[in-house]
Amino acid sequence: MPLETKATITTFGGKLFKLSHPSSVTGTPMNLNLFVPPSALSKTAPAPVLIYLSGLTCSPDNCSEKGFFQHRASQLGLALVYPDTSPRGLSIPGQNDSWDFGEAAGFYLDATAEPWRENYKMESYITSELPSILFSDPEFGGYLDGTRVSITGHSMGGHGALTLYLKHQGKYQSVSAFAPIANPTRCPWGEKAFRGYLAGGVEEGKKHDAVELLRSGIWKGGDLKALVDVGTGDNFYKSGQLLPENLEAVVKEKGLEGVKVRYHEGYDHSYYFMASFSGEHVEHAARHLGLL
Amino acid sequence: MPLETKATITTFGGKLFKLSHPSSVTGTPMNLNLFVPPSALSKTAPAPVLIYLSGLTCSPDNCSEKGFFQHRASQLGLALVYPDTSPRGLSIPGQNDSWDFGEAAGFYLDATAEPWRENYKMESYITSELPSILFSDPEFGGYLDGTRVSITGHSMGGHGALTLYLKHQGKYQSVSAFAPIANPTRCPWGEKAFRGYLAGGVEEGKKHDAVELLRSGIWKGGDLKALVDVGTGDNFYKSGQLLPENLEAVVKEKGLEGVKVRYHEGYDHSYYFMASFSGEHVEHAARHLGLL
Repeated sequence: MPLETKATITTFGGKLFKLSHPSSVTGTPMNLNLFVPPSALSKTAPAPVLIYLSGLTCSPDNCSEKGFFQHRASQLGLALVYPDTSPRGLSIPGQNDSWDFGEAAGFYLDATAEPWRENYKMESYITSELPSILFSDPEFGGYLDGTRVSITGHSMGGHGALTLYLKHQGKYQSVSAFAPIANPTRCPWGEKAFRGYLAGGVEEGKKHDAVELLRSGIWKGGDLKALVDVGTGDNFYKSGQLLPENLEAVVKEKGLEGVKVRYHEGYDHSYYFMASFSGEHVEHAARHLGLL
Repeated sequence: MPLETKATITTFGGKLFKLSHPSSVTGTPMNLNLFVPPSALSKTAPAPVLIYLSGLTCSPDNCSEKGFFQHRASQLGLALVYPDTSPRGLSIPGQNDSWDFGEAAGFYLDATAEPWRENYKMESYITSELPSILFSDPEFGGYLDGTRVSITGHSMGGHGALTLYLKHQGKYQSVSAFAPIANPTRCPWGEKAFRGYLAGGVEEGKKHDAVELLRSGIWKGGDLKALVDVGTGDNFYKSGQLLPENLEAVVKEKGLEGVKVRYHEGYDHSYYFMASFSGEHVEHAARHLGLL
C-alpha cells in the first residue's frame, strides 16, 4: 500500500511531506516526515538519505520544526527521514503511564517480553520495513537513493542510531548522535526500558547497548565514521543517563578509529543545542554519502 | 527593577535569556526572550538589536525555537529581542474567548476602548517601556547597542513591525515582515481587533494600518528600507487577511522607494516558511545597522 500524504510543506526550497502508512511490523499506522531537497524534486537526481531518530516523547514533527537539519540538507542535496518513536494507539496496559517507557519511547529495539513483543519492534521497523516501503513507493521512492543512507539521532534516538549502525553493518554509511544514551545497561532510562521490553532484562539489553556492542567485538567494519556531540550543561549528561565517556573508553580500549566525541561548553539537552550543530551532522553524513 | 532571568540557554555560540519584568504600561508581568550573539557576550562590543514581533497565539518562545533567526544573527553579531504578544493573566471578560483577539493578540496598539485601554498598550510597551528597561538593565544593557535597532515580525507581528516603523520614524533603522497583515482595516482579523480595542472602531484603526498610514502621507523618511516576504501557498494570504498587494499599490501610488515585496511559490504561513527566509531578514537588518 503506498504512503499516504497528510501534508506537503514547502521549506528551504524543498518539500517536507508528512506521511503515514500501515505497518505490518508494528501492527499500527506509522507516521513519518520526509524532507526532499530542491535538487531531488525533479526525480532526475535522487538524493541520498539521512535518517533521524528522535528522542523520548517526540513525534516526527519535533525535530522537523526545531532541529534545523533542513537548512544545510537543502544546500547539500540530502533527503531527511524523520520516523516516529514507537507504535501508537495500542491498548497495552501501562503504555502511557510514563514519559520514558511505552508510547513515544520504543528504544529502537524489537521487544522480547510480553505484552510488548507483538508490536514494539522498532528495530525491524526502522532498518527493514520503513526503507522497504519508502524506497519502493511509487510517489516518493523516486526522490531517494536508497543505496546511500546514513543515520543520526538525539538522546534515545542517538542510542538508536549508534546501535542500529553497529548491528546492521553496511546498511548505513555513517552515524552521528546528539547526547546519545550511549551505555543504556548502566543508566536508569536504559535499565527501565530493558527490564520492560526484554524477557532477559538488562542482561539481554547488552545486545542493544552501543558500548557493550563495541566491547563484544561486533564491529568489523574498519573506521567507525561516527560523530557524537554532547553539551556539558545537559542535566541528563550530568546525572549519568548518557555516559559518552564510556563510549570513549571502549573505543580506546578496542583501538577503534573514526569516532569523534565532542563536548560543548554550556549546551543543554534541547533542540537549542541540536539546532546549533545539526548543520555539522548533515555535513558529516554528506561527506560519507559522497556529497562533499 | 531589573529584569528577572528565568532561564539561560546556550545556542549557536551565544546565549538565549528568558526574561521577565513587571510592566507599568500593561500592569502585568511581561516575558521576553533575548538572544545575545557570541561577539557581544564579553560586553566589550555591544550588539545592535533586531526586535521580532510574533503573530497571533504566540509567546516569545515560538520563534525562538522555530524561526532560526539565531543562526545568522550569531554569525553577524546581531542581538534578537522576542517580546510577548499581549499582557497575560488579567481578568478581562472575553480576553480568552478567541484565538485572534485578547490574550496573545494585542495587535501592537494602545487600546482606546473599555475594558482594554487600561492594560492593552502594546505600542507603548514595545516602543518605549521595553527598550527603556532592557537597554538600561544593569545585567543585560551592556550586551546591547540601544542606538542601533531594527524591527521585524510575522503576521500580526508583521503588521506591528510595519506600523511601529512608520509611526515612530527614526526609532528603527529598517523594517521587515513575514506575511504581514498589511491592511488590517480591510480584513477580518484587523476589523475584529479594531472594533474591540478602539473606541473609534475600524475608522480609528487607520492610524494602525500600514497601508492607510502610507496613504496618509505620514512617512517623511526617504527610502523605506522595508523587506516583505509572502508565501503564495499561505491560506491567510489567499483568503485576504494579509493584502500585501495593497501595500505594493500604495507604495507605487505615493512614489515611495525602498520597499521590496517578494512572493515565494508554495510557501505557507508557518515557521517552516519563516525559517527558510529568516537569514535574509537578519541580513536586511544587519545591512542597515552597519554590520554588513
